[in-house]
Amino acid sequence: MTMQQTPLLMHRLMDRGADLQPEVEVLTATETGVRSQTMLETRNRAHQLAHALNDAGVELGDRVATLMWNGARHLEAYHGVACMGAVIHTLNLRLPPPDLEYIINHAADKVIIVDADVLPLLEKLAGKMPTVQTIVVAAEPGFENWSTSLPNVIDYEDFIADKPVKYTWPEIDENSPMGLCYTSGTTGRPKGVMYTHRANYLHTLSIGLTDVMGLSATDTLLGIVPLFHANAWGLPWIATTLGMRQVYPHRFMVPEHLARLIQDCDVTISAGVPTIWQGIKGIMEAEPGKYQFKSLSRLTCGGSAPPPSLIEWYWDELGIEMVQGWGMTETSPLATISRRTGKRKHLEMSDAERAVNQAKAGLPIPGLEIEIFDDSWQPLPHDGKVFGELLIKGPWICSEYFNNPQPDKFHDGWLITGDVAKIDPEGYIIITDRSKDLIKSGGEWISSVDLENHIAGMDGVAQACVVAQPHPKWDERPVALVITKPGASLSRESVIAHCESRFAKWQLPDDVLFVESIPLTATGKMDKKVVRAQLDSDGYQLPDLA
Amino acid sequence: MTMQQTPLLMHRLMDRGADLQPEVEVLTATETGVRSQTMLETRNRAHQLAHALNDAGVELGDRVATLMWNGARHLEAYHGVACMGAVIHTLNLRLPPPDLEYIINHAADKVIIVDADVLPLLEKLAGKMPTVQTIVVAAEPGFENWSTSLPNVIDYEDFIADKPVKYTWPEIDENSPMGLCYTSGTTGRPKGVMYTHRANYLHTLSIGLTDVMGLSATDTLLGIVPLFHANAWGLPWIATTLGMRQVYPHRFMVPEHLARLIQDCDVTISAGVPTIWQGIKGIMEAEPGKYQFKSLSRLTCGGSAPPPSLIEWYWDELGIEMVQGWGMTETSPLATISRRTGKRKHLEMSDAERAVNQAKAGLPIPGLEIEIFDDSWQPLPHDGKVFGELLIKGPWICSEYFNNPQPDKFHDGWLITGDVAKIDPEGYIIITDRSKDLIKSGGEWISSVDLENHIAGMDGVAQACVVAQPHPKWDERPVALVITKPGASLSRESVIAHCESRFAKWQLPDDVLFVESIPLTATGKMDKKVVRAQLDSDGYQLPDLA
Ligand SMILES: Nc1ncnc2c1ncn2[C@@H]1O[C@H](COP(=O)(O)OP(=O)(O)OP(=O)(O)O)[C@@H](O)[C@H]1O
Ligand SMILES: Nc1ncnc2c1ncn2[C@@H]1O[C@H](COP(=O)(O)OP(=O)(O)OP(=O)(O)O)[C@@H](O)[C@H]1O
Ligand SMILES: [Mg+2]
Ligand SMILES: [Mg+2]
Repeated sequence: MTMQQTPLLMHRLMDRGADLQPEVEVLTATETGVRSQTMLETRNRAHQLAHALNDAGVELGDRVATLMWNGARHLEAYHGVACMGAVIHTLNLRLPPPDLEYIINHAADKVIIVDADVLPLLEKLAGKMPTVQTIVVAAEPGFENWSTSLPNVIDYEDFIADKPVKYTWPEIDENSPMGLCYTSGTTGRPKGVMYTHRANYLHTLSIGLTDVMGLSATDTLLGIVPLFHANAWGLPWIATTLGMRQVYPHRFMVPEHLARLIQDCDVTISAGVPTIWQGIKGIMEAEPGKYQFKSLSRLTCGGSAPPPSLIEWYWDELGIEMVQGWGMTETSPLATISRRTGKRKHLEMSDAERAVNQAKAGLPIPGLEIEIFDDSWQPLPHDGKVFGELLIKGPWICSEYFNNPQPDKFHDGWLITGDVAKIDPEGYIIITDRSKDLIKSGGEWISSVDLENHIAGMDGVAQACVVAQPHPKWDERPVALVITKPGASLSRESVIAHCESRFAKWQLPDDVLFVESIPLTATGKMDKKVVRAQLDSDGYQLPDLA
Repeated sequence: MTMQQTPLLMHRLMDRGADLQPEVEVLTATETGVRSQTMLETRNRAHQLAHALNDAGVELGDRVATLMWNGARHLEAYHGVACMGAVIHTLNLRLPPPDLEYIINHAADKVIIVDADVLPLLEKLAGKMPTVQTIVVAAEPGFENWSTSLPNVIDYEDFIADKPVKYTWPEIDENSPMGLCYTSGTTGRPKGVMYTHRANYLHTLSIGLTDVMGLSATDTLLGIVPLFHANAWGLPWIATTLGMRQVYPHRFMVPEHLARLIQDCDVTISAGVPTIWQGIKGIMEAEPGKYQFKSLSRLTCGGSAPPPSLIEWYWDELGIEMVQGWGMTETSPLATISRRTGKRKHLEMSDAERAVNQAKAGLPIPGLEIEIFDDSWQPLPHDGKVFGELLIKGPWICSEYFNNPQPDKFHDGWLITGDVAKIDPEGYIIITDRSKDLIKSGGEWISSVDLENHIAGMDGVAQACVVAQPHPKWDERPVALVITKPGASLSRESVIAHCESRFAKWQLPDDVLFVESIPLTATGKMDKKVVRAQLDSDGYQLPDLA
């Protein structure tokens, strides 16, 4: 072999930031203000955490879960767990306990690192996590005196105390697993996407490219997108590789707090779902001049499509570029990107024309192939008119789910995204619909199928169909269509009350419509596209908007 | 395997530019002005070239050599040859015929693509290239009526005419070879570095990062560094991946022509050795206001160290950032980079302080490890004071030479660079000397050992030592120290005349000094560091500077 066979392992990238910018800060919002530690301290603590986990019996490939907000300790867990050859399994702390229980057991997590304020959620699973041997509690200021009924619990600081600040990272196969993230599905249980070192290494380099996220060692990132959401779009990895200043909001996710962090911490780039940017826009419009975003130049926005008006508002009012990304947990996640100036010809464009492009899901980032297909798997023209199932290929795209291969989600080496899209003659992907039937509210999935199954199980219900309806704040909210059994009498309230036993509050349908029939596709499945189209043509409005 | 096993092949990147920016131009300087073709035409022609080569018997792994200036056809050869699974072997058209002959035969080139104006050089090797089956002649305007005494020759346009514009690139192992470049050595024959798809793919992504070369789809590159020099620093690969507008100067390498290209083609970034930038500075100072570099914002400069005064001049006079890179043919080549603002703390620095950093070889780019070692292979402190042999590791670093492993050039998985360096507390590499004894003149190597051996073979010569002396225009020029045999009488002129039979004009020593003795190292080798230090303390000046 004429070139070195260096395995593409995350430790090759993750230790670099502290080498080059040891003094740069990692900031975490707390009850009592912003807590600061240096990049070097963060790296040292990541190495200490690896030692502690190793001493606690964590071996190559073992899953170490986090149930945490975004903060320095969560970043240390990314760094330490992945580099030691274990798997950082990020648990979504917004999931209802039954889903968490399923996921923890399916993943067979050996350790869970949990934020002290999230302990009550984990306590609901007491006795139901047989694989979990150790629970490590991360306490931010104000939570130092945590206590819990859970067994085998240790404080994060006690766990890592006195451990050496240098762990000799193992030289393992680059295809070894390093990260695990579960995603909801249209049917059945959550499915795990197991990231490998190789995939994540390549994703890290590609998203750092100038025309992708364009991140620099001089940037300050406010990482709002949860670290439990698809690698937080890969930002912790590239930010640490570059030694970027990083700010994490922890549980302080209200717009006022985020706006103050942007202002006070000299943030240059941030990342979050459209709901976040809607919220911040809202408070800035309500009190003009209250917040000054002097250093902020780019907002990365993904998870669902930001409305064009939002993109334009940030540019026109604040001179801030909204960078749209499209991706999924299964794609590491970044797959396409849309910048103000993504092509040479855009240099000549007006702001309005640029905003049109920014409102599209974007251009494939280097390394990926994207195509749209018809029902018989024939590729469709890129005319910006015909749409089809979006498929994607590349070295950081999932090829099977963890211990649950699901071959029907893949076709001939491609991942079937479950998105319906057009591709325009400029190569832009435009997401038009979702063939998977999920609802995305405030950046979080609500499974319409889960709701349907649950409602269908109610006395007096013949059939249930749940669809997304557009909402200006949450992007989408669920609405249930219900066919009652002859003679049964149900109310909107009784259906919602029935759902409360299984779903979190924010997952409950906003409305219940009683209907005579539900349109079906040729193969006898509910045709949600038709349902949504009918609601639209009827001029339907969600209750809180009507 | 949970993530797709997509092999890292160059076709995944190289076809992308034309997909996204088909209309963007690739420009080539010619006798009659700048010749333009689109990115799409360039890609189509690359696919046609692959078909033509395939029809001519080129198979996976076969070497296809180029003996060409920088131009669109050379770029097509990069694209077509590499993606078809053959090896693009770039021949240095400044080498003397005996070296070319050795290299062509050692590489066993099957095809040579040659610029028509370079045919006279290739004709000197008539009958001495037994492996070469086809010679393809690329004729720029003014050379269409080329003729040659060489056999099996075809015009490039006839060669690719009527070939399909779509080649189905093979799905080969990512460790397959794709590029070959020979580099001079301190001793012995030139050695080939065989690039693989994997190595080059990773190098392409890493150099595109914002803090490395920071290239964008909106940039216009003037690629001055020869495409036969270490992948032209990787620029053709990343530029084509991004669909960047590219300008190539072909054989018009004089400063006036380059300056006009920068001005007339709206170049935003260029790349070349310090000699180029010295030359352009020279003509701009001679006729202030004659050239306007309105769009140029960055100059990448590597191959030897640019003087700090040059870095400062471009910034102070023109607001152009000089980006220094350090690397070697063996490192694909980019290994370290030095930007005006490479770290967060540089944001607070004065221009003068930044120039100090820019004058250092730079910070390791993501993916590489760099260390300095003492004579017994112990790593040395990074105090900016002690220096040692610079070693480098990573996925785009050579691990052996092609068909000539040379294990003494490697140590424990590292490449021994032959450079002597310090590393400062900020992590900057500072090249202080070369343990390999070569002279770099105008971006080209001159082997001191080859000159010494040749001079030592002259009647009346007892011993010869050739060292580099600093030169403001060429960076370095060779000077020969000669010990004559008792009774012999030699002149400066006669020694230089003797060298003319073996070396190109620009490789001849500038001066010959007759000395009594030459200092030796402990192990009995000529101690060139001492020789250079003595010349320095004697106040020696090259003849054209004295
Ligand atoms: N820019 C976008 N425009 C439109 N839809 C988007 C965009 N980005 C993501 N989506 C939608 O989100 C889906 C991916 O969601 P996915 O659940 O994988 O996100 P996630 O952030 O990984 O969250 P989760 O942990 O809930 O799975 C895409 O298939 C698409 O339907
Ligand atoms: N920025 C720099 N500062 C100082 N020296 C440099 C710099 N860049 C390169 N060099 C010198 O050049 C050497 C690499 O030369 P190398 O010959 O591999 O370059 P090349 O461009 O590949 O040309 P060639 O085809 O002649 O080999 C380095 O080992 C170093 O000595
Ligand atoms: Mg998902
Ligand atoms: Mg070399």
